[in-house]
This record gives sequence, structure tokens and C-alpha cells, in this order.
Amino acid sequence: MDQNRDAHPPATRIGIVGYGNLGRGVEAAIAKNPDMAIAGIFTRRDPAQLQPLGASVPVHGMDSLLRHKGAIDVLVLCGGSKDDLPWQSPELAAHFNLVDSFDTHARIPGHFAAVDAAAQAGQTTALISAGWDPGLFSINRVVGEALLPDGATYTFWGKGLSQGHSDAVRRVPGVAGGVQYTIPVPEAVDKVRSGVRPELSTREKHRRECFVVLQDGADADAVRRAIVGMPHYFDQYDTTVQFISAEELARDHGAMPHGGFVIRSGNTSASSKQVIEYRLQLDSNPEFTASVLVAYARAVHRMHAAGQFGCKTVLDVAPALLSAKSAAELREQFL
Amino acid sequence: MDQNRDAHPPATRIGIVGYGNLGRGVEAAIAKNPDMAIAGIFTRRDPAQLQPLGASVPVHGMDSLLRHKGAIDVLVLCGGSKDDLPWQSPELAAHFNLVDSFDTHARIPGHFAAVDAAAQAGQTTALISAGWDPGLFSINRVVGEALLPDGATYTFWGKGLSQGHSDAVRRVPGVAGGVQYTIPVPEAVDKVRSGVRPELSTREKHRRECFVVLQDGADADAVRRAIVGMPHYFDQYDTTVQFISAEELARDHGAMPHGGFVIRSGNTSASSKQVIEYRLQLDSNPEFTASVLVAYARAVHRMHAAGQFGCKTVLDVAPALLSAKSAAELREQFL
Repeated sequence: MDQNRDAHPPATRIGIVGYGNLGRGVEAAIAKNPDMAIAGIFTRRDPAQLQPLGASVPVHGMDSLLRHKGAIDVLVLCGGSKDDLPWQSPELAAHFNLVDSFDTHARIPGHFAAVDAAAQAGQTTALISAGWDPGLFSINRVVGEALLPDGATYTFWGKGLSQGHSDAVRRVPGVAGGVQYTIPVPEAVDKVRSGVRPELSTREKHRRECFVVLQDGADADAVRRAIVGMPHYFDQYDTTVQFISAEELARDHGAMPHGGFVIRSGNTSASSKQVIEYRLQLDSNPEFTASVLVAYARAVHRMHAAGQFGCKTVLDVAPALLSAKSAAELREQFL
Repeated sequence: MDQNRDAHPPATRIGIVGYGNLGRGVEAAIAKNPDMAIAGIFTRRDPAQLQPLGASVPVHGMDSLLRHKGAIDVLVLCGGSKDDLPWQSPELAAHFNLVDSFDTHARIPGHFAAVDAAAQAGQTTALISAGWDPGLFSINRVVGEALLPDGATYTFWGKGLSQGHSDAVRRVPGVAGGVQYTIPVPEAVDKVRSGVRPELSTREKHRRECFVVLQDGADADAVRRAIVGMPHYFDQYDTTVQFISAEELARDHGAMPHGGFVIRSGNTSASSKQVIEYRLQLDSNPEFTASVLVAYARAVHRMHAAGQFGCKTVLDVAPALLSAKSAAELREQFL
């Protein structure tokens, strides 16, 4: 495989399945990687209505996907974890190498089993749950524990826009629109960074900030109470609710920033504390997630070429496989 | 291999070659990992004079190493990159799986070639240049570039004790003892974190702080000038020199803290900056480096069992191989 990589093989041809924020991000990410090319965008909508970023990018109906099999090295699935990926990933893994961003943590073992059966049968390579969490954060949790077995791991999210919590806010009666930001509590982050391994409650780790547009005539106090008391979503957190106009919502809250930290602190001896921190600050959550999927698509293409079939996760991928550079170049330039 | 891992195989038996700070750190790290065991410590000194941390740990002369071959799964080499590893790693890779921490960046390709030839011939697996830089920082440089190809990577070191620069200070005529700390310049770190991709000179990134004990009758001003003007080591930096007593040196500067940051910032679109940061804060540089070597020894043992012979680096190791847990446990608990 190294020899192939040194000889600069033809571009990895990516099929984009689904064209929302994530699909657009994948298209943008491929444009930044000269060794990758777009085979096509596949959509359940009317292909003629879709406006890709690149004017020359072919758009096809989902039902034509199998006919393009010979022109596609890896599919990047850009659908949702609730309704699309649970059936799409196993179905498509029977025929294609693929990467998905399945992020329903509790259902990952079941999703893995379904995709693995399909990929083993089809002799394809299918990597699930790529992205930053699950994904890059998962890697740092695993490696952190392996390096510092006598320690504790902390994950903080934010400051960032939470899609799930924003949806919950928008379902409250009287709410015309709104967004929710998850914010790590600085005192908790500082305490974790100091290496003392604090016990932290849910409330001590994150707070939640909502910006809400009221429907005409809605009762602000009732809306606020409904939000801050909402079970699971908000009742275990300190939550602030600010009411704003529809214009302010559109002007100030249209971006999708996110990020967070994984911190592992541990002792290598009684007197030596060691702290490992991995941190992301993202202006655009979907564009960054898309960039992760594209790098893992490169790795999947290589793993398939090396005969490594079946379902994989980011935990199975050696760092060198993510890079467009050859193993020798990497050793010379990055070690 | 997964099946073996799920069945909890016998411990990985480690031979420690060399017993300075790093060797002691490896012994301490193995004690924190229930799936690892010490086969023995091998030294060029008189074995009877060595005091391992664990009273029951066997100590042998280096010349007996080959006789213990059947009792050792992986050697962890704890010698220096200048005098020991260039000949030791190729020589021992002919007979043993091993991990070394070779850190002379410019000589890594040559070292790789020598070790690879020996390991291919001996059908062993030999991982070179493990640790945190080269090592964990290298991984983050490679992955950062792969995820954000339109971007820039910055490495900052410190605050930490630099062995090489401390040695240089101690060679200055008139110096009885001393240490040197490398310190990242906060303004530079902040600028990099903001995602603006600044061009930074050597002087703008780090400053150097020396604590020096003078010999009786030495000229403080001459010593200071000799240090701050020393080519390569200090002349390109803002360096401060503080004179202290031998007691203060022993009391306040005996620890070996270190650490640093790898920051990748890049754009996924014109309006979206993304910043990835990997940070280490280490109370003890040798103990942490030792913990990294031990985790990679676990991976080397598995790669050898899977028939992956030859020279490897941290860039070739999938995260799951570093963990004592099975692939299924990792997917369930960490993804």
C-alpha cells in the first residue's frame, strides 16, 4: 500500500448522499483536498432543484445510486442519525465503502453490528460515527485513559449551538423561534485543568443560554418556566432565557459555532500530575464535521484497498491513513 | 485478534533496557497497567548496585539480554538518542519487538531505515520515536493538517525544563550549576488560538529563563553575556538569567516539568475558522514519556501478533491498539 501512496494514485472519488448543511460541508471540504474528487451528489429531492456550491458538480436522484457504483470509491452519508442512517448505512454498506456520522451514543453497538454484517458480506469498508463527538473526542478519551490509567476524563461541550436543545426550545408553546447555546462553566474547566480530578455535577459543568422569539401574545414568564423546567433538557442545568426579536435572531444567531474540550488528568506517581487536553473551537460545526468525514473517507479507501473489510470506527484508523502525504513524507516532515 | 483481546490474554512482558529517569518511569508506568508485567531491567551498570522501585523486580546485566528472549514480549529502550539508540535499536530489533524514544528529528528517516531492515529480517515489530514530541505532538500535526488542509500548524513548548539547554548553560565557564526553562509567549499563543494564522519569529514564540549557580569568584556579567549570546541555543531568543544559590537550585528546580501545545487553525470556508488544540501540562516529563512508551509497547505486542513486522512509528498505530480494553468495550464506553 505504501508504494501506491508514494506513486500518487488517482483521486478518491466521493459520492455525497444527502445535501443539507453537512452535505454542503462535504462538498466544500473535497474542494480543499486535491487528492479527492466528487463523483456526484445523490438526493431524495428533485435533482434539478438542488444548487451545489460547484456549478459543474453532478446531482442525481438517490434511486440512481447503484448505477454509479463503478464511479464511486467511498460514499459520505450526510443524513440524520434518527431517521436516515439506521437503515441507510447497512443498506448501502452492502454495495459501497462508506463513512457516516451516526451519533446516537447508546445505539452505536447495534448500528455497528448491522453495518458490519452488510460490509462483511459485501466486502466493503464502512466507517461509522465519524465526526468530532463521537469521533475525535472519542479518540482522545481512549488514548487519554491508555496513557494515564490512574486518572479521570472530562468532556465539556461548547460554547456552541445545540441542535437538539434548540429544537426542544422551539417546541415550547408560545415560541416562534429560538436557539440554545451550551456553555462550559469556566470554574469547572479550571479545576479540571489543575489536575485535582474534581467530582462535578451536571449543573457544575455546563450552563445553558436560550435566545427566544415569542409568538404574538405569548406569556413570556410561562415560556421561560416551561423551558428552564423541561425534564432532561434543562431541569438539571442553570438556564437563562433571553427574549429577542425575529430580526435579532436572524442577524445574530444564524451561525453554527461549537466545540469543547476533552481533558484527561492523571498521576504517573504520587507527586506527578499530568494533564492532557484536546480542544476544538469551531466557527461552523457542520463544515468541521464534514472535514472530518472527508479525511476518514480517504482512510476508508486505503483500508479497503488493503483488504480490511467490515465495519470500522475512528478507533481503528492509524493517523497516517488520514493524510494525503506518503508515510515517508510524514516521517520526515511531522515526527 | 479481537477474540484474543476479549479473552484477556496473559500480561505483556516488558524488558526495560537502561535505568535512568526514563527507565524508572517505565517501571512506575507498568505498575499502573494490570495487563503489563516487568520481565526484567537490563543495565550496563553492575546489576547488584541498582535499586528498582519494586523490590522484587529482577535486574540483569545487558550482556544477558539475549538469554531472556523467550520471557520478553517487548523491550522498552530507555537510553539516549545521541549515544545509545542509533546502534541499540537496530541491533536489538533483530531479536526483539521494541519501542524507543529516538528524538533527533533530522535523523529519524535514517534511524527508521536501519531499524526497519533489522526488524524485517528478524520478523519483529519495532516502533521508534515514541513519546510526546516526537510522538503525540507528531500525531496532532499530521491529523491537524489532514482535517484542515487550508491552515497552519504551530507548536509551542513549555513551560518546561529543557535538558539540552540546561546542559548548554552548565558548560559555560564560571557556571557551577543551573537549569533552563522554555516558556511560550502568551501573546503569541493567544494570537494563534484566535485563528488568524500569524507569522511568528522564533523570538516571538518562546522566551528562555535560566537559573544559574556561579562558581566561586566567577564574573556574573560575563556568564550572563556568554549565555544570552550563545549561538543557536539562546541568541535568537529573549533570555533572562537569574543567579541563585546551590541550595535554591536543589530546593526549587529539581523537578522536570514540561509540556506544550500543538495548534492547527484553518478555514473550511471563507467565513469559517476552525481551531484544534492539543495541550500537555506535565509535572514530570520522563514519567509521562515513559507512560507513552508503555502504551505503545502494548500496541507493538498486538501488531507483532497480527504479523505486522518491520519499523513503525506512532503514525502507524490505530488508537484502539493502545488501550487494554477490547474493541467492543471501547465502542460501548468511549464513542
